[in-house]
Amino acid sequence: MKMISGGVCAPIGYKAAGVCCGIRKKNKKDLALIVSEKKAAAACVYTQNLVKGAPITVTKAHIADGYAQAVICNSGNANTCNSNGIEIAEGMCALVEKETGIPACDVVVASTGVIGQKLSLDPIESGLPALVASLGDDSDGAAQAIMTTDTVKKEIAFSFALGGKACRIGGIAKGSGMIHPNMATMLVFVTSDVAIAPALLQKALSADVKDSFNMISVDGDTSTNDMVSVLCNGMAGNPVIDSENADYEVFCAALRAVTRYLCRCIASDGEGATKLLECCVTGAADVSAARTLAKSVICSSLVKAAMFGADANWGRVLCALGYAGAPLDVDKVSVRFVSKAGSVHVCENGRGVDFSEETAKAVLSEKDITIAVGLGDGDASATAWGCDLTYEYVKINGDYRT
Amino acid sequence: MKMISGGVCAPIGYKAAGVCCGIRKKNKKDLALIVSEKKAAAACVYTQNLVKGAPITVTKAHIADGYAQAVICNSGNANTCNSNGIEIAEGMCALVEKETGIPACDVVVASTGVIGQKLSLDPIESGLPALVASLGDDSDGAAQAIMTTDTVKKEIAFSFALGGKACRIGGIAKGSGMIHPNMATMLVFVTSDVAIAPALLQKALSADVKDSFNMISVDGDTSTNDMVSVLCNGMAGNPVIDSENADYEVFCAALRAVTRYLCRCIASDGEGATKLLECCVTGAADVSAARTLAKSVICSSLVKAAMFGADANWGRVLCALGYAGAPLDVDKVSVRFVSKAGSVHVCENGRGVDFSEETAKAVLSEKDITIAVGLGDGDASATAWGCDLTYEYVKINGDYRT
Repeated sequence: MKMISGGVCAPIGYKAAGVCCGIRKKNKKDLALIVSEKKAAAACVYTQNLVKGAPITVTKAHIADGYAQAVICNSGNANTCNSNGIEIAEGMCALVEKETGIPACDVVVASTGVIGQKLSLDPIESGLPALVASLGDDSDGAAQAIMTTDTVKKEIAFSFALGGKACRIGGIAKGSGMIHPNMATMLVFVTSDVAIAPALLQKALSADVKDSFNMISVDGDTSTNDMVSVLCNGMAGNPVIDSENADYEVFCAALRAVTRYLCRCIASDGEGATKLLECCVTGAADVSAARTLAKSVICSSLVKAAMFGADANWGRVLCALGYAGAPLDVDKVSVRFVSKAGSVHVCENGRGVDFSEETAKAVLSEKDITIAVGLGDGDASATAWGCDLTYEYVKINGDYRT
Repeated sequence: MKMISGGVCAPIGYKAAGVCCGIRKKNKKDLALIVSEKKAAAACVYTQNLVKGAPITVTKAHIADGYAQAVICNSGNANTCNSNGIEIAEGMCALVEKETGIPACDVVVASTGVIGQKLSLDPIESGLPALVASLGDDSDGAAQAIMTTDTVKKEIAFSFALGGKACRIGGIAKGSGMIHPNMATMLVFVTSDVAIAPALLQKALSADVKDSFNMISVDGDTSTNDMVSVLCNGMAGNPVIDSENADYEVFCAALRAVTRYLCRCIASDGEGATKLLECCVTGAADVSAARTLAKSVICSSLVKAAMFGADANWGRVLCALGYAGAPLDVDKVSVRFVSKAGSVHVCENGRGVDFSEETAKAVLSEKDITIAVGLGDGDASATAWGCDLTYEYVKINGDYRT
C-alpha cells in the first residue's frame, strides 16, 4: 500500500469541487460536490443520535439499493430540527440531477453547521452551476467546503493492488467539535475505484468504524448529522469482491489506512486543541473492554485539561479507567506517557512509581501524546484518539452561533 | 421545616472543627473533625468508581454495624492509589481514638485531593490535639477544612418536628471538580439528632442520592473518593423511627432539603463556573428516562460552553437529549430557557420557534439558568444540576498538582 495524492479524486473516475455559495456569512467555501463517472457501490454509517439531520433520512433512502453516484454537502447549516428539512435535502439532490444528469435518487446528501435553523435552497441553486463547472481532479476545494470550525483540511489517498490491478482509495473528512461518534461518525466521504458488492462494502465499513471513528472523541457530544459514506465505482477493473476472500481483506486494510489517518486528523484538529492524545490499552480480557477503557480516558475532561497543562497527573487516568464501566483489576494497571521526547513510567500495579517531573514535562510538552495503559488481564487491545481541553475550546463554543 | 444556622453542629450533641495541619502547602485548613456526644446510627453511600480511595474501604468496615460517632477528613491528598493507603486511613482513626476516646472502629474517615501520592500521618498526628481542643458549636472550620478547589464553603441546617419533638439535621459538603457522582457522590457529611434505626437511615440515604447527588455533574468525571455519610444520634428524643411510617417520610423530606441545597451549592461552585445550570425534564414516560435525559443535557460540554457565552444555542440541548440513551419522541420535545430575567421559548415539537435574541441574551446572562425540557410522553420528571464550562475550568485543571 502506498500513500498517494488526490484525496477523493485519486481513484479512477471521480471529480470534486467546492465553492462559496453564500450559506455562510464569511467568504468561505460552503458547498462541496463529488461525482463518479459510473454508478458506484455505496455504503454509509450514520449517527445513532435520536435527533437526526434530515440529510441522513434522505441519504438512507437513496442508497437503499446499494448504489450512488454523487455526494453533495453544505456547511454552515445542519438542516436539522427545522420544519422543511426533508424537502430541502431532497431539493439539493434534485438540483444535482438538474445540473449533472445524475438521478437525484443516486445522490448522497449531507449538511453540517448550526442545528435548528431553516436552510434555503436559493444559495445552493445559484451556486451549483459554478460548482459543476469547476469539477476537477483535485479534492482540495471539496475538502475545504465541508469544514466548519476545522482549522485544517483532512484528505488522504492510498494505492494498492487487487487481482493484479492497481486500485485506489481516498477520503476527505470534516470534524472538530461535537465529536463523539457512536456507531458512526462526523462527515467522512471515501471514494474508491475498487469493484465490490454493495453488501460486502457495507460490511467492511460497519466493521471498520468500531475501531476507527467510534474511537475518537473531542467533547463527548454525539452529533446529529454524523455520516461516513464510501463509494466504489469498480473502474480499477479488479475482479469484483463478492465474498470475504483475500481481496476483501486487502480492501479492508486499505479502508482502515484511510479511516485511521482521518481519525487522527479529526482528533488533532479538535476544537481548540493543541495536542493529539492517543490512548493505547493493551492486555485487556476482550476488545470490548479495551475500547471502553481507552475511550473513557480520552473523554475525561480532567485528563484532557492535565495534558493541556503538560501535567503528569496520572491519577486522573486511573480515575477514568475506574468509572469506564468495564471490568478492571486495579492492582494490575500500569500507565506510561509516551511522545517523541521519550517515555515516562508513572504507575505500576495501580500505584504510583517515582518519576522525574522534568522528564514528564518534556514528554507531555510534545504535540502527539500517547497514554499507554497496560491491564495484565489478557491479549486484547484498542486505541482511542482525542485532544486536550483548552481555553480556545471554551471560546469557540461560547458563541458559535453568533 | 425551618432553615437554621449551625451546619453539622445544629443538631443536639455534635461539635466540629477544622485546622491547618500542614498537608497542603498553602496556609489553608486541611483537617476536619466532627464528633457526636453519643454513638449515632450511621449510613454512607460511596463512589462506584472501581478505583476507590483507601478511606472508603476503611469507612465501610467501620460502619458495618450501623453505628459511628466521629468523622475525620483531610484535604490535599486523596490517599488513593498508593501502597499504604489502608494503613494510613486506619491510622487516622486510631489517632482520633487516642485524642478523643471514641473507638477507632466508630470513626468515619475520608480524604480528598491529589490521587496517587503517599499521605503521611505526621501532620495529622501533630495537628489532632489542637483540632480536638478547638471542637465547638460552629461547623465553619470543618466546612473550610474539607475544601479543595471549592471557592465557597457549603453548609446548611433545618429544624423540623417528629412525634412532638423538635429535631434538627445539618450538613457540609465539598466538591467542585471531578464531579459526576454515580450511586454516590463527592464528600458530604450530614448530622441529625433524630432517633432512627440504622437500616432505615441507610434506606433513606440510598433513595435520596438517586435524585440529589447522582443528578449533578461538573465535568463528567466520577471521583475515586466520593462519599456521603449521615449520622443520627437520637438526642432529639423523638420516638425511634423503625418503620417506613409518617415520621420516616418527614425525616426523608428533611434529608432531601439538606441534600438538594448542597447539590445546588456544589454545582454552582463547579470548577471555574460562573453559572448554575438546572435542567428540569417534565412529561417523561418514567423517572429513569427523565433522569437520564436531564443529566445528559447538564453534561454536554457544548451546552455548558453555550451557557457560558449566554448563547441560546438550543440545538445542542436537542442533540444532548438525542444521544442520552433514553427513549425520546423528538417531534414532541419543547425547550425553554428560564431565569429571573424571564423566560424564552426556543423549541416546540422538536423544531425551532422564532424568539427574540435580545430577550434570550438577557435570560442567559443571569447566574441561575433553568433549561426546561418538555417531552409530552407522560407524567414523570427529574432535575439535574451542573454549571457552565469556562476558561477558568481549563486553567484550574491544567496544573492542579503543581
